[in-house]
Amino acid sequence: MPPATEPGESTDAATSRRPRLTPPIADVRRAVRAVLDPLAPAQADAGRGAQRLETPPDAPLVLVALSGGPDSLALAAATAFEAPRAGLRAGAVVVDHGLQVGSAEVAARAAGQARELGLDPVLVQRVEVDGAGGPEASARRARYAALDEAARSTDAACVLLGHTLDDQAETVLLGLARGSGAASLAGMPARSGRYARPLLGVRRATTVEACADAGLEPWNDPHNADPSYARVRVRDRVLPVLEAELGPGIAEALVRTAEQLREDDDAFEAQIEELIEEICEPAEAGIAVSIGVLAANPAALRQRIIRHVIGSEFGVSLSRVQTLEVARLVTDWHGQGPLDLPGGVRATRAGRYVVFSTTGSTEVLPHDH
Amino acid sequence: MPPATEPGESTDAATSRRPRLTPPIADVRRAVRAVLDPLAPAQADAGRGAQRLETPPDAPLVLVALSGGPDSLALAAATAFEAPRAGLRAGAVVVDHGLQVGSAEVAARAAGQARELGLDPVLVQRVEVDGAGGPEASARRARYAALDEAARSTDAACVLLGHTLDDQAETVLLGLARGSGAASLAGMPARSGRYARPLLGVRRATTVEACADAGLEPWNDPHNADPSYARVRVRDRVLPVLEAELGPGIAEALVRTAEQLREDDDAFEAQIEELIEEICEPAEAGIAVSIGVLAANPAALRQRIIRHVIGSEFGVSLSRVQTLEVARLVTDWHGQGPLDLPGGVRATRAGRYVVFSTTGSTEVLPHDH
Repeated sequence: MPPATEPGESTDAATSRRPRLTPPIADVRRAVRAVLDPLAPAQADAGRGAQRLETPPDAPLVLVALSGGPDSLALAAATAFEAPRAGLRAGAVVVDHGLQVGSAEVAARAAGQARELGLDPVLVQRVEVDGAGGPEASARRARYAALDEAARSTDAACVLLGHTLDDQAETVLLGLARGSGAASLAGMPARSGRYARPLLGVRRATTVEACADAGLEPWNDPHNADPSYARVRVRDRVLPVLEAELGPGIAEALVRTAEQLREDDDAFEAQIEELIEEICEPAEAGIAVSIGVLAANPAALRQRIIRHVIGSEFGVSLSRVQTLEVARLVTDWHGQGPLDLPGGVRATRAGRYVVFSTTGSTEVLPHDH
Repeated sequence: MPPATEPGESTDAATSRRPRLTPPIADVRRAVRAVLDPLAPAQADAGRGAQRLETPPDAPLVLVALSGGPDSLALAAATAFEAPRAGLRAGAVVVDHGLQVGSAEVAARAAGQARELGLDPVLVQRVEVDGAGGPEASARRARYAALDEAARSTDAACVLLGHTLDDQAETVLLGLARGSGAASLAGMPARSGRYARPLLGVRRATTVEACADAGLEPWNDPHNADPSYARVRVRDRVLPVLEAELGPGIAEALVRTAEQLREDDDAFEAQIEELIEEICEPAEAGIAVSIGVLAANPAALRQRIIRHVIGSEFGVSLSRVQTLEVARLVTDWHGQGPLDLPGGVRATRAGRYVVFSTTGSTEVLPHDH
């Protein structure tokens, strides 16, 4: 039996390579298609399956964030194939973090691969990583700033990120080590603003195979083998032990968990949005929250309201212990307080309110609604 | 400096041993005290710290579930010390599962230790483990049936279980491997009906030390070293790797996570309790749920409502995939269905309702509220 091909594959001029449609390539393409199809202009359906794909120059643009590693390279190849079929243009942006000797060459090679795949435009963004807040956080901040800038300058509709199911499972385990509840276990969102992660349901091994099947040679970041990174230790030492001892489905189970906890957290966020206006009053140098409403809500919501108010009003993030201490002003009041919280914030029980202020003033201002 | 003693320790007649108050013993006692104090009869405060403790024979009784292992033996010793100080009587119940050669001797020895500690009454319950649903589940079911029976026969106010922080962390990891969201990650509750777990904040190592410091020789269950149990593999192979790679606080982080996810799950349960009456209508051979209400609620709540209705109406537990398929009758309706679910349950979109039935009938009955 001849290898399966997709309609249009044999005469597809957009890619110079003509890979066999192996299962890994099909898996990655299918995942990309699910994200691109909703972005497709209305007339795109007519073009799907046509022999020759002419994407109009004013078609919406999707950008692939390309490191040159197997995940993003497989993503780039699949996007080069799928975008024209959805009536979309596809480009790439390569971020050169300048952290390793030869990083400029790595970036140039990845950009060359992107052009060979037919992606256009292909941008290379050199960034400065200042190291503030730790090397990983600093590199991440610089990377997203560069991706944002690339999306703005090209007016891209969407930036595709190559994170896989394995990345998501690792993120959940790292969140578990922090122990800060649903928000830290929820992993990375599949959609967030202009960013999309089409491969969150695809194993990393599948992207490696897809590259090999397509004759694409990915770059192997030496950082990915450096055990001084917690993420690398999770990948190389923790997940394999979990798979060996608890079953091979553990990565998928972690991702399923993340999905559900993200929904949970979203639900609480939505409930807080609905509640927050009616339960807060301005107070001198701060804000007052109704004790009656805090008391009437379940602990999970009460504590999220407290964290939300202090976060949005003072930019302060409370630990669980601190949050519970504030909650006890409502649920276990025996005259304690005021509580001194980080950022000079003070929490005081005053009449029917818990007042959060920066000066110690607890007077609730009159209001007009 | 002489070793610290608590008031009343030197003349305490309730225990035949007089252990030094070492930090592990103090930690276990403090944890037990936090659970016993709220159970204390009103007049007990007066007795605390008195030289001699006479607990009236009609004082409330707490029962320690004693296996003879270090956790429950340390719990028994601490309860023997703390209960009279809270005006409570303390007894023990030893369950002989009959699964190992010599189990009767193990049970008799644990019962002897309980009596030496001053616990009274001390019951030994022999149970039949039928193996249904797997050996672990079957043993657990038989054990709780025996504990329930012991609590009923002695009219106990509370049964104390010896689960430690390590047990809780293991439970969370086992739940993570199932991948079924907050409910499976929430671990064991600190209180549930007549059961309490005072040691969920105490490390297992602390209970081992507390036993050694008190001169108590715990029994080491050979099952605890049998790697055919997933829990044993988590304890011996998974948690040590997590601690080595992600930091020594991982067990505590898992327990903190469990605490928060339990609160989240409780909050959703409370919200469903409030909603459920008004959104369900009886239907022929089943129940109808308002599409408007399902659609208006966030995904986390919508999916929990679906699982709750099918669980309580038909005793069927839906997987995540099945739940999402039912939810799409609401959120992504394009004429699909009816869906055939486990237990012969059928889900059909009919007018303003999703109807769950066992006969395929979808008629919504008239109602009178």
